Amino acid sequence: MERVGFRLQLRTEMLDEYVLHHTKVWPDMLAALEKTGWHNYSLFLDRSDGSLFGYFETPDLQAALAGMASEEVNERWQKFMAPFFLELGDKRADEGFISLENVFYLK
Amino acid sequence: MERVGFRLQLRTEMLDEYVLHHTKVWPDMLAALEKTGWHNYSLFLDRSDGSLFGYFETPDLQAALAGMASEEVNERWQKFMAPFFLELGDKRADEGFISLENVFYLK
Repeated sequence: MERVGFRLQLRTEMLDEYVLHHTKVWPDMLAALEKTGWHNYSLFLDRSDGSLFGYFETPDLQAALAGMASEEVNERWQKFMAPFFLELGDKRADEGFISLENVFYLK
Repeated sequence: MERVGFRLQLRTEMLDEYVLHHTKVWPDMLAALEKTGWHNYSLFLDRSDGSLFGYFETPDLQAALAGMASEEVNERWQKFMAPFFLELGDKRADEGFISLENVFYLK
């Protein structure tokens, strides 16, 4: 399994609403993530500046990204979420995230 | 298992050296982490601003923190690492980290 860390920037005035939506992610969105290999997936929020940190494990990152890119529900979900993010331009959040460098790992 | 996300701020002029030290963490430091319940532990670096994100899983966060606080090797390691961090004051990195809010989880 590859361990993936990524970072995105939320609009700090919209954090409560973002969190609320993530307590009730659409079941077909969850199913699509599972199907395309997004495992043990957590999102962590730093409310002090709106930094969002994602962590997941996947057998193949490129396949996981390509898989979600081909899911219709993902396109709807990312359009729904786009207003919450800064600095994405025309990209979906899962296209625009900054992949982080894994500098340490202990099993 | 509790999933823990945390964040720290590295001095951007010292990133290469920080990364290098983390390719050769002392064996007794690794053993202490394992012994005190730090599992599946990754550190991720955002080189654009020196943000460091940590992720680990533990049966009991308070026990994991207290366990490391009582390990002599941890005191030595944290003293060694202290110059790499900003905004810690007199705290060790594992005392000064910002615990992040887990806003989403998918198994």
